[in-house]
Amino acid sequence: MAQSVFDFGMIGLGVMGRNLLLNMADHGFSVIGFDKDSTKTGALESAATPGTTVKGVAELATMVQLLQSPRKLMMLVPAGQPVDDVIESLIPLLEKGDVVIDGGNSHYTDTVRRVKYLREKGIHFMGMGVSGGEKGARTGPSIMPGGDKAAYEKVRPMLEAISAKVNNTPCVAYLGTEGAGHYVKMVHNGIEYSIMQLISEAYALLQHAGLDNDRLHQVFKTWNEGALQSFLVEITADIFLQKDDKTSARLVDVISDKAGSKGTGKWTSQDAMELPVAIPVIDTAVAMRTISAYKEERVEAAKIYNKPVASFNTDTETWIKQIHDALYFGVIISYAQGLAMLHQASKELKMEIPLPEVVKVWRGGCIIRSTLLEVYMKAYSASPDLPNILLNKEVANLIENALTNTRTVVAQAAQSGIAAAGIMSALGYFDAYRTERMPTNLVQAQRDYFGAHTYQRTDATGSFHTVWGE
Amino acid sequence: MAQSVFDFGMIGLGVMGRNLLLNMADHGFSVIGFDKDSTKTGALESAATPGTTVKGVAELATMVQLLQSPRKLMMLVPAGQPVDDVIESLIPLLEKGDVVIDGGNSHYTDTVRRVKYLREKGIHFMGMGVSGGEKGARTGPSIMPGGDKAAYEKVRPMLEAISAKVNNTPCVAYLGTEGAGHYVKMVHNGIEYSIMQLISEAYALLQHAGLDNDRLHQVFKTWNEGALQSFLVEITADIFLQKDDKTSARLVDVISDKAGSKGTGKWTSQDAMELPVAIPVIDTAVAMRTISAYKEERVEAAKIYNKPVASFNTDTETWIKQIHDALYFGVIISYAQGLAMLHQASKELKMEIPLPEVVKVWRGGCIIRSTLLEVYMKAYSASPDLPNILLNKEVANLIENALTNTRTVVAQAAQSGIAAAGIMSALGYFDAYRTERMPTNLVQAQRDYFGAHTYQRTDATGSFHTVWGE
Repeated sequence: MAQSVFDFGMIGLGVMGRNLLLNMADHGFSVIGFDKDSTKTGALESAATPGTTVKGVAELATMVQLLQSPRKLMMLVPAGQPVDDVIESLIPLLEKGDVVIDGGNSHYTDTVRRVKYLREKGIHFMGMGVSGGEKGARTGPSIMPGGDKAAYEKVRPMLEAISAKVNNTPCVAYLGTEGAGHYVKMVHNGIEYSIMQLISEAYALLQHAGLDNDRLHQVFKTWNEGALQSFLVEITADIFLQKDDKTSARLVDVISDKAGSKGTGKWTSQDAMELPVAIPVIDTAVAMRTISAYKEERVEAAKIYNKPVASFNTDTETWIKQIHDALYFGVIISYAQGLAMLHQASKELKMEIPLPEVVKVWRGGCIIRSTLLEVYMKAYSASPDLPNILLNKEVANLIENALTNTRTVVAQAAQSGIAAAGIMSALGYFDAYRTERMPTNLVQAQRDYFGAHTYQRTDATGSFHTVWGE
Repeated sequence: MAQSVFDFGMIGLGVMGRNLLLNMADHGFSVIGFDKDSTKTGALESAATPGTTVKGVAELATMVQLLQSPRKLMMLVPAGQPVDDVIESLIPLLEKGDVVIDGGNSHYTDTVRRVKYLREKGIHFMGMGVSGGEKGARTGPSIMPGGDKAAYEKVRPMLEAISAKVNNTPCVAYLGTEGAGHYVKMVHNGIEYSIMQLISEAYALLQHAGLDNDRLHQVFKTWNEGALQSFLVEITADIFLQKDDKTSARLVDVISDKAGSKGTGKWTSQDAMELPVAIPVIDTAVAMRTISAYKEERVEAAKIYNKPVASFNTDTETWIKQIHDALYFGVIISYAQGLAMLHQASKELKMEIPLPEVVKVWRGGCIIRSTLLEVYMKAYSASPDLPNILLNKEVANLIENALTNTRTVVAQAAQSGIAAAGIMSALGYFDAYRTERMPTNLVQAQRDYFGAHTYQRTDATGSFHTVWGE
């Protein structure tokens, strides 16, 4: 009989699975990985840091047998059927009390289903979001686990060891019941879509003012040293410097403008509508990626709608500062919408998501890490149940300081014909959110007029209906 | 044995079911309705026009027995489980070749499932959208049937008789396979959400310039006599005149700004993301209805973000004209997005939706009927497979004429702090759509940087990956 010696097992040794496992080994855990592909098991072992305990095997049963009891193992396989397939092949091999983690981007409803299914068999199943890309997986990702609290405690030492650290605090925490981990990761990705869209609009607006790639690099580098400090702004600065191997151009200039997606942004928008909660900047980011794929139509439309529009009536340095503030405003709103969604989901879906922990975990390792999250952490520490971060006074100050320039940028973008749908959507959301009485009384009047949908009154409770226009 | 005499049967005698049935009777068909509620069967019979053949029964089996073979019947019951329940109780009563129509707002995926289920039993099932509200149901609705073409031919005489007419052309046509009817109706409702949102923004912008309800009535009445002629603009003019029974106020002023929804707008946005196709103005309309429900948060936010902003720097008449053009622009874009969605759905979901027929059907009877649809009908007659109506030259002229004023309105709304998320979204969509090279090359560069998602090049085919920042 094989000796049970390993602390942790991984199913699926793609780059993320391999790097997470090597990260654990670097922190003193003995780890074993399974993949049917022997080149991947070989790659795992050969990439191990000397002196660490890392083994790759080509049989799932072998890996399971070699794990200490209660077994702790993670799968990193494509979302959907592959996860269910792995679960089915694991069931006969596991014992009660074992912990299985799905570290991929599964939809939270699948995770809820799987948690319940495996709970009946005495097996702990956890859905866990991991962000940081392949590099982060190796050196310190942001980790978003949800599920059984007792199961979390069993894997906590490993997760805390491998996670990113901010001021020595691990970027991992228990984030709620059943599907909460994957839900938080999904919303993380929605915010990521949104910020990337806003950065691309800032890029277009700056380009339109004549900035070349070197100047763009400088602008984003400077921004990354201030209030906008964040991973996405940092890599954007890098990107403008990257040379193309094939031509003398900068790489960014020869990259196609068709942007892809893996669907988590779409899920975020669809699930927000289901709650419902309003996240229009994220919706807009999803829509703009879709439009980016309509290349042929855009080429045709550009020929039809080719009349010149106004140029910016401002000097470049002022413009750069104004765009900085508009981007900052948009980024604040992006987080606000995502966090409001988590607040609502936590209540409606009974996921018990602790928002102070969420922003703490996001501060390091993940794609949306930024200095701004420190402000949010303070806000949520003071009031963990805040429905929207915009209601925090310190955030309000940041907004107020950026607001005039944001309004100017939206006005200039509108006048000059540069698409800035994300920044516009952020401003439209903000102005609606801060409106005590919206004009939607008219919408409700229309609904009652044509559909007898009834309305509420400002001066009485109950539902009312009027026969209109008679 | 009972005599089979009636031409058409209706299951569910709520106001829509009753009115559709009475409409058929008015056109010479003998009709019978079933409802368990005897007050409703009584209400049906007592509302019948003298000389017409209308009967109400409280037993489903009785109604089915009294229908001529092949039987033609419709259900108008709440979407979801009630539809399946009716189907199950119908199955033992029906014969092969009978036609069952679901005239409610079912989700198209349910309709596809039901079509297949009943097809196995030899029964024709059709999903059919009906728009026009209770009044339209009685006097001439817009009817959007989809499903089995042969089944459509069996009910066509009745549907053509009861539908709205525009220049003697019935506002009903066969709109595609299986779930197509409900799909077209869903998108109709999405466009409806969008236009209602845009009208509410125009209302807010005009109010901000000091227009009272009488002046608002005049403005919308005048607009309804021009390019904006449409049912929704027409009823909006009416709404501003409606007096409140309880107070001396106009009713619109005492209606709560919390706008409700029944979910078809949400479905439209969610399903658009699934295709995917970009319909950001509809998404925004859905989001704004959601924000309208956050009353307490908005009251709190209004106190925090209460700094005065710029007033409009234009005279009132100019402003009214500018808002007219912005609304017109937004309405054109709303239809463009909905119709682009139908174009894409027709291909991707193999629904064979004939767009020339869709806009023809929408010209009369339905909530989104408007003069603009005549322009679209001409455009689709010339090129039925147009991916986006914005690529039509005549539409392009309308857009160009409204564009400068739209840009001004967005700029003024941004500067003055009046929420205009829908109009902004329409402009953001348009400016993205007409951009030959979007800045999403940067998004794709970022995706490759942090996630190795690869990118395409402008000068070569294939997928590429770069190790960035080294």
